[in-house]
Amino acid sequence: MKEWEKNIRKVEPYVPGEQPNKPDMVKLNTNENPYPPAPEVERAWKQFSPDSLKLYPDPTANVLTGALADYHKVTKEQVFVGVGSDDVLATAFLTFFNSGRPILFPDITYSFYDVWANLFQIPYRRPALKEDFHIRAEDYFTENGGIVIANPNAPTGLMESLDFLEQILEKNQDVIVIVDEAYVDFGGESALSLLPKYENLLVVRTFSKSRSLAGLRIGYAVGNEALIKAMNDVKYSYNSYTMNRTSLALGAAVLENEAYFQETVQKIIATRERTKKALSELGFTFPDSKANFIFASHKRVKAKDIFEELRKENIYVRYFEKPKIDNYLRITIGTDREMDRFLAKLKEILDRTGI
Amino acid sequence: MKEWEKNIRKVEPYVPGEQPNKPDMVKLNTNENPYPPAPEVERAWKQFSPDSLKLYPDPTANVLTGALADYHKVTKEQVFVGVGSDDVLATAFLTFFNSGRPILFPDITYSFYDVWANLFQIPYRRPALKEDFHIRAEDYFTENGGIVIANPNAPTGLMESLDFLEQILEKNQDVIVIVDEAYVDFGGESALSLLPKYENLLVVRTFSKSRSLAGLRIGYAVGNEALIKAMNDVKYSYNSYTMNRTSLALGAAVLENEAYFQETVQKIIATRERTKKALSELGFTFPDSKANFIFASHKRVKAKDIFEELRKENIYVRYFEKPKIDNYLRITIGTDREMDRFLAKLKEILDRTGI
Repeated sequence: MKEWEKNIRKVEPYVPGEQPNKPDMVKLNTNENPYPPAPEVERAWKQFSPDSLKLYPDPTANVLTGALADYHKVTKEQVFVGVGSDDVLATAFLTFFNSGRPILFPDITYSFYDVWANLFQIPYRRPALKEDFHIRAEDYFTENGGIVIANPNAPTGLMESLDFLEQILEKNQDVIVIVDEAYVDFGGESALSLLPKYENLLVVRTFSKSRSLAGLRIGYAVGNEALIKAMNDVKYSYNSYTMNRTSLALGAAVLENEAYFQETVQKIIATRERTKKALSELGFTFPDSKANFIFASHKRVKAKDIFEELRKENIYVRYFEKPKIDNYLRITIGTDREMDRFLAKLKEILDRTGI
Repeated sequence: MKEWEKNIRKVEPYVPGEQPNKPDMVKLNTNENPYPPAPEVERAWKQFSPDSLKLYPDPTANVLTGALADYHKVTKEQVFVGVGSDDVLATAFLTFFNSGRPILFPDITYSFYDVWANLFQIPYRRPALKEDFHIRAEDYFTENGGIVIANPNAPTGLMESLDFLEQILEKNQDVIVIVDEAYVDFGGESALSLLPKYENLLVVRTFSKSRSLAGLRIGYAVGNEALIKAMNDVKYSYNSYTMNRTSLALGAAVLENEAYFQETVQKIIATRERTKKALSELGFTFPDSKANFIFASHKRVKAKDIFEELRKENIYVRYFEKPKIDNYLRITIGTDREMDRFLAKLKEILDRTGI
């Protein structure tokens, strides 16, 4: 081994989620929205001048933070934007979790929380979920350096109530509590309403799911102005320009059409509920998801086998080879047509594998 | 002070560079290209489907790394792309500088090197530039954890020779040597030709200057496949999706038109040389820049005063209130028309201030 090779940072070799691109595939593996973004995005695209790309983007992302502030009826100083909620969450970890005490998040949750904690040398503990995959509030009543709750949680899809979040916020007023609401628009109740009451609350969201803009990479956080200023100070200190000009222009435009947004979200919810019923009939069990996916386990056939059989049919769902969840499939809600094809193939596979 | 406030990360309060947006301004303060990107960018933009934004971008950025590999006649596995060269450089710091020994870069250079070193807790030393602002090779012959050389250097604009770089590479085969070539297209000689000889060399570049795409945020690194794999492993380990779909599509397109690229770069070089002559005649001295800016000091009038007077006239140049360089202005090369207006105003200001 060469000398310089010894000093390469050791990381868990991570293989990015499969992004197949086949003409006839049904892609239900990365929680994308099956519907295109609001027509205002195409309008903004047409109005956009490619020549303007010669100039740096506005580092304050004014047009987007302004649109988000108007949308959520908060001040622009309460909104932080980043390159997807991954960027926003990582910045929040770096900004707020410097006490040296362990931060807390569930053992089964979004898989990047421990990655960022390791990256920034933040100690952490992961209380186990209950048997039914719900989070136990009391596990978060001990001394800690901060708390991160995905709500609805991923990959379970389960939603905790605002009462539950208030219990955690009440008992943890000395640390920052991050509520990651990537999936909240699909039937959950947002913690944004708690912001006036808890200055230690940071709500993080994304345009990748309910806004159909995964390809633009836009996430944001809403919190009190002191928190947002701290995040901006940290962000500007090491990189002034991250949101590109197209993200700013098109991201602001997507917020203009509330009717389209509600309609799309309601379609996905309706398809999800219909899919739950069909999965039940096929012998699956699952937590009662409020997200745009269902986390399902079959009573007889192994998740991994179903995953592989579906894959052969060009139908992609997500399978995690991890303790406690290795008999579950995470199935993104697509269009009705996609779900019909998925369910038909699923039935075939289950039938093939005998009673 | 509240408890949670105590644990907010302490950073140097950084104010992002001024990004004025006035109808009649001359903006020579952030080294942007005054010419629009190649027409292929507009063509790709017209062909782009905003509906495709519902899907995540390709995490391997295949279309862009492929185009860059073809352009530079290297393999795709030798190319790493990121959100501007800031992202690429920061990832390289995180990936390669883990020996615990101090990394080395000049005391006057791009201002983010020490920021990233601090962010990732990498020790560093900054050997002083020579009186004439050139880098002294011998300062880099001591034990170290890695080396970063901007070539041409910023904000001086001075280019070191390939011989100079080879001396440094020869004596430092146990560490990674990063050559940051943000400005190399404006008349410099690229270290890319040294790649077959030095496996510890990483060349970093950007689309923000010579490619007129500052607004898209695209940077890249070229190096041997082991280095690029290490960077990708680190990057994927904490964020799989950072380059958005527009950056990938439009970034790949800009590489298609070499004639336009050469023509634009030659225009900027011609304007730079003409501007040097005019500045000399006005009593300025400056290192012999090979970049798209000139770093100039006046023999009689203070840089700060000139900066402020120009600002009143809606002409923006860059002034750094830092030791050793606080009597210099960094003047980006704009169009001939912009430079004429700048030079005329400059003459007026100098005339007003006596003799």
